[in-house]
Amino acid sequence: MQKSPLDAYAILRKRFSEDIKGPLTRAMLTDCFAASLRFISRVPKTPLLSLVPNKKYFAFSFKKKLSRAVNADLYSADLSEWESFTQNLVPGKIKGFDAERITRLIYTVAMSFCCSVDLLRVGDQKTPGTFFEYLIAHLFASQLQSNPKTRIQVMNLDDVEMYLPTDFTFNLGPDRPKFHLPIKTSTRERVIQVWAHQRVLDGVFGTGRFLGTPVILAETKTNKSSGEVIEICLPEQWRIYQLHIAQLKRIYYLDVPATYDRLNDVFPPVHVKPFGEFFFEAEALSL
Amino acid sequence: MQKSPLDAYAILRKRFSEDIKGPLTRAMLTDCFAASLRFISRVPKTPLLSLVPNKKYFAFSFKKKLSRAVNADLYSADLSEWESFTQNLVPGKIKGFDAERITRLIYTVAMSFCCSVDLLRVGDQKTPGTFFEYLIAHLFASQLQSNPKTRIQVMNLDDVEMYLPTDFTFNLGPDRPKFHLPIKTSTRERVIQVWAHQRVLDGVFGTGRFLGTPVILAETKTNKSSGEVIEICLPEQWRIYQLHIAQLKRIYYLDVPATYDRLNDVFPPVHVKPFGEFFFEAEALSL
Repeated sequence: MQKSPLDAYAILRKRFSEDIKGPLTRAMLTDCFAASLRFISRVPKTPLLSLVPNKKYFAFSFKKKLSRAVNADLYSADLSEWESFTQNLVPGKIKGFDAERITRLIYTVAMSFCCSVDLLRVGDQKTPGTFFEYLIAHLFASQLQSNPKTRIQVMNLDDVEMYLPTDFTFNLGPDRPKFHLPIKTSTRERVIQVWAHQRVLDGVFGTGRFLGTPVILAETKTNKSSGEVIEICLPEQWRIYQLHIAQLKRIYYLDVPATYDRLNDVFPPVHVKPFGEFFFEAEALSL
Repeated sequence: MQKSPLDAYAILRKRFSEDIKGPLTRAMLTDCFAASLRFISRVPKTPLLSLVPNKKYFAFSFKKKLSRAVNADLYSADLSEWESFTQNLVPGKIKGFDAERITRLIYTVAMSFCCSVDLLRVGDQKTPGTFFEYLIAHLFASQLQSNPKTRIQVMNLDDVEMYLPTDFTFNLGPDRPKFHLPIKTSTRERVIQVWAHQRVLDGVFGTGRFLGTPVILAETKTNKSSGEVIEICLPEQWRIYQLHIAQLKRIYYLDVPATYDRLNDVFPPVHVKPFGEFFFEAEALSL
């Protein structure tokens, strides 16, 4: 019998940390994508009423349940696209894929699994969030050819060893960039945590030593009774955090909210980009 | 017919913001406490297995539901105690009440309502949290004789008005202290938000202009199947935040976790105290 999305995820969860950047993790992610497509491709789609300019959204529906909102222009179910991408994923020289095509593919991998869980479980926010972490951490690690850590030893003048639990951090070695990678399916008011963790890293290791590059799936919210989709954005607060807490280098989205896109053009600049761009600028980010 | 705890709360919620420090808010809080006591006093108590040294916990149980853990030494149901306290609550000169007695009373007011909601609703974390905010904000405002705000205008050299939504802040006027009052029923890893908001206030208005004085109910967690109660504490992380994000002036608890109590004695000092102490040191905190 073929695996369900949740069966495939259970295996990924068990063995993910063995080699985050490696071929085993990639094979387990491929299994999750394949299982999600098998399930979700047979499920009816319901159009939603998008209040976001220039974006169309739908939801999958199954046994009276409705999945999260899916951006119709970004979603294109295709397992061979993923296989072709991962075969060509050589750091710094991806052949045949531009940033837009990569963003769409990774959005689809994430959404097919997250929507499957929305329909198969009740009130489970954690499983989609953790899967999204695994997916992005693997791609990041694979591109940087380095496995991340999730805690860091902190200098202490007294006689106590202090460790700080962190989001994923990548240390590529002397004279090469270090990355601070928070991963969220959406942020809302909790986003201040990302700037606060960057502030701690700046304080402990020196300002700018770690490049803060959070990756976020989307900021949509669906009103279940009216079917209306909005994006919840806090651009004024982001500007205040970027001025007064710490500087993030990039904020990557799979489905970039229009409101945040405009922050590229104001002071203080907050550089918000589609995640696909990362694969072409990773090496240049520290320059 | 007498009001249920949720009926009394619905009225409080509707009119709380009219005059947070005033007699109407106090009367509505009194109603909530009275209604909670009427309900919870008839409900059986189940002893829990406390793994916290020197603390005993129980839970209320009703129709197969179990409330959050209640510290047996701090809980003493008594409406007349609240009436006596609020009559004597004159800023700087409370008669007949010491800090310990005040802490126990306010713990009881909070817990009687929160446990009632735990038993009357399913999975409602928001109502207990908001009630606790109302209770503490009223007492703080009443003691400072000043109503709080929840947003602040931020300096901006360009032509845009920028407002920062905040926890409760109190501005007592020139040459008097200003307070930054986050209120939480528990914190866990979300506590970094408190330091981050303090950092923003320090950045915008100058370091130390606002005194950060969060008030937290407890940090207990109950294992529902074994009945074991633990306290979830992150003391190492608190020290790192206090060193690298911002300095909080006090962290008040109703049920002070033993692990955090010890932070008073190490570097960097994090001053953790029972909330009752606030009523005797409020004026001196800025010195």
